[in-house]
Amino acid sequence: MLNISTDALVYTQNRRARFIFELKEFVRFPSVSAQPQYKGDIQRCAAWLADHLKKIGMERVAVIPTSGHPVVYAEKCHAPRKPTVLIYGHYDVQPAEPRIEWRSPPFDPIILGDDLYGRGASDDKGQLFTHVKAFEALLRSGQELPVNIKCLFEGEEEIGSPNLPAFMIANRQILAADCAVISDTQIPSVSQPAITYALRGSISLELEISGQTRELHSGVLGGAIHNPLQALCEMIAQMHDQNGHIAIPGFYDRVRRWDAKERAYMRRVGPSDEKILQDAGAAMGWGERDYSLYERTTIRPAITVTTMHGGYQGGGVKAAIPTHGLVKLNFRLVPDQDPQEIDRLFRKYVEQITPTGMRTRIRTFASSRPVLISRDHPAVIAAAHAYRHGFGTAPVFLRNGGTIPVAGLIQEILHLPIVLMGFGLPDDGIHGPNEKFHLPNFFNGIETSIRFLTAIGQGQHTSLVRRDNSQHIRNTVMFRRP
Amino acid sequence: MLNISTDALVYTQNRRARFIFELKEFVRFPSVSAQPQYKGDIQRCAAWLADHLKKIGMERVAVIPTSGHPVVYAEKCHAPRKPTVLIYGHYDVQPAEPRIEWRSPPFDPIILGDDLYGRGASDDKGQLFTHVKAFEALLRSGQELPVNIKCLFEGEEEIGSPNLPAFMIANRQILAADCAVISDTQIPSVSQPAITYALRGSISLELEISGQTRELHSGVLGGAIHNPLQALCEMIAQMHDQNGHIAIPGFYDRVRRWDAKERAYMRRVGPSDEKILQDAGAAMGWGERDYSLYERTTIRPAITVTTMHGGYQGGGVKAAIPTHGLVKLNFRLVPDQDPQEIDRLFRKYVEQITPTGMRTRIRTFASSRPVLISRDHPAVIAAAHAYRHGFGTAPVFLRNGGTIPVAGLIQEILHLPIVLMGFGLPDDGIHGPNEKFHLPNFFNGIETSIRFLTAIGQGQHTSLVRRDNSQHIRNTVMFRRP
Repeated sequence: MLNISTDALVYTQNRRARFIFELKEFVRFPSVSAQPQYKGDIQRCAAWLADHLKKIGMERVAVIPTSGHPVVYAEKCHAPRKPTVLIYGHYDVQPAEPRIEWRSPPFDPIILGDDLYGRGASDDKGQLFTHVKAFEALLRSGQELPVNIKCLFEGEEEIGSPNLPAFMIANRQILAADCAVISDTQIPSVSQPAITYALRGSISLELEISGQTRELHSGVLGGAIHNPLQALCEMIAQMHDQNGHIAIPGFYDRVRRWDAKERAYMRRVGPSDEKILQDAGAAMGWGERDYSLYERTTIRPAITVTTMHGGYQGGGVKAAIPTHGLVKLNFRLVPDQDPQEIDRLFRKYVEQITPTGMRTRIRTFASSRPVLISRDHPAVIAAAHAYRHGFGTAPVFLRNGGTIPVAGLIQEILHLPIVLMGFGLPDDGIHGPNEKFHLPNFFNGIETSIRFLTAIGQGQHTSLVRRDNSQHIRNTVMFRRP
Repeated sequence: MLNISTDALVYTQNRRARFIFELKEFVRFPSVSAQPQYKGDIQRCAAWLADHLKKIGMERVAVIPTSGHPVVYAEKCHAPRKPTVLIYGHYDVQPAEPRIEWRSPPFDPIILGDDLYGRGASDDKGQLFTHVKAFEALLRSGQELPVNIKCLFEGEEEIGSPNLPAFMIANRQILAADCAVISDTQIPSVSQPAITYALRGSISLELEISGQTRELHSGVLGGAIHNPLQALCEMIAQMHDQNGHIAIPGFYDRVRRWDAKERAYMRRVGPSDEKILQDAGAAMGWGERDYSLYERTTIRPAITVTTMHGGYQGGGVKAAIPTHGLVKLNFRLVPDQDPQEIDRLFRKYVEQITPTGMRTRIRTFASSRPVLISRDHPAVIAAAHAYRHGFGTAPVFLRNGGTIPVAGLIQEILHLPIVLMGFGLPDDGIHGPNEKFHLPNFFNGIETSIRFLTAIGQGQHTSLVRRDNSQHIRNTVMFRRP
């Protein structure tokens, strides 16, 4: 058992109602990064978060503009010769559409039972806020912080973090740390914590097809002029073979084949097919027969059609051959696939299967590399200790099929070891309607964060402590706008 | 040369500017039958048309409500022992979307060169109005009308005439006539008039597919849960084989095979592939290789995907597996296909190719039988005479790939011979943006209509004149609302 400040735990215990009230305030902002009409709400959400960080005692708090939505930064660096921990989270959220499927308004959070419902409650406001409340508990319970803390909270995660790489490159010195914590993943259940050690990469793109230049009467010309919507459907149908394998030539060339030992480990600790289907509310699985559903979503790549749109969109019927149609596709990639290479292979394949007379245009919105973290890293082991106390059970190590673009960026640009310390649950409904955050995870998470920072600070994992970390403690803050 | 009233022709000649001005007034009403927001405009358009018919001297003018949009009726029946001609047209129009593709506002008609631009200018307001102006010229040039005239102008043609069958059945006596003229077709060019003798039938329907009940994160679950949009694309891809043949089992069973003589006639008088492509503004044809483009659009059936819609429709990207998607399909049928039978075959095929775990729902909006008219009918021959004088050239007999539901209805319910007397041009852009009506066709059409009615009235085609047509001349008008 680590020697941690029980004061911080008691502080939290006595302020649960206020913490929940504040989290509701945070969720109330419709900080949807994908939709331009919410630009002002994003700004207001960032300002609220910055104010809140100041209020709890964080320093050098700044809302830093980018070409898109701002970054919120804060730090507390008063612990010379202690490690510096960079905490990453995002305050932007997914669109709430289709709103009709929400049982309560997405941006008017309500509590039902042990859950707080609202868009972003779990992804990622609730998880981000868990750490913020841990800082508050440590700062306000009369102790010195056990480590130096830097917060990097972005507003563009849900649109692929387009401005974060430049921001990180421009502000590498300011963001210097010994390890990074990203809290944007799930644990299997409140009684079974987990540490994520693998993430899929991703590519989001749009494929548009154009046929004849004029919309044509489907009676007068149907059967004699090719239809771009039909052609697009036929092209999408050629993305997979009948066994659910992706049919793009070369797509699997760099997909790592895992040995029997790793697959056995995954089978032992990972969710069963039944559990995955139950959490998804789906009747049956789909995809590559030779792999379990857990494997299909973690060590196997995927292509999802997320949008299709074409032709007359009003009520009733319009008897016309449309001029163009589009789909949006979301690729998920696994080690050692390279997003740029996959993008090239896809473009080449599309060119090859585009019917004569049709024109296609591909627009890549964002891409991220897959991430793999050693389960033996000292910070990961510290996190495992913290979870065991915060949730009362030792965590398992899991892969996650999602993508956290910042994880790849932190590895590549800041060269930091990463701990993916998540507090979401599989049935939180992130990205879908009726998203919620499980409040017991909120409070167990606060304790886990407190215990993690304490463990790191007490030097249990000395490899994290540098002799000279004076670069982490600066006298001036001069962010460079990318 | 027929002995016709030159007064009526002179009358028209001197009132060209006013006739165009009035047609613009008519086109200005956004009488879009498919879109509920235009319900009031439809009503106003019907009232305007009724007023106009009164003004030119038509009698028993009525705007008759239906469960949908009203029917406008008018008559002038003062010619005992002369034939009665029922003139059909529609004052409703196609939706104007996508508006961005219009060079001028669709409901603010303008004249450029010899063309009047606006939604419905050609389909069908301009063509309908051609006959109305012919009536005016005959009525106002001081002559007795050569025939009895009844006008049936509906407001639901573009949504498949859902209420017209019941209206016709309920008012069979009032609509009794010797022949019907439908003016809603095209001629190859202003120097080459044509009479349409075949129309394709049609089915409009919606196919919706649903997968898992919750929208799911495409990272967390992509590759393990089937995607309804992908499944829908794969199903649409299975509607045609690689040669452009429709793959629905039994679909071609009743398609009539035409003999070499008919196909030679079609080749001689019909448009070439080049002409069809040029008129469509398309670079190349598509479809069944064994048939010319003219044949593909007239004696061969077709399926057109007119709409596709699914998943997130906002800006940017949403990384989710959607719960459902839909397509709207427009079938075109040829003799001797039966719409009900084809609908059944389609439903059976969809059931067969729906992937396990997906649910499909099909909603049929409207259907019409294909129509075939004898080229030897006396009324058709009278029309050919009239065209020869109105346009200066003998007309050719053409098939048309479009559908005029009312043609089938008039045949089945009123048992009248039909003349399809069209004044549109192939490049009028009906159903598309920048629809226009060629004004020389308007005036040649007025003369053609005057000459047709005169020819019929002069008994050149005695088979049309009944001994006792007193049923056509009534003392009371009591429409039955269906």
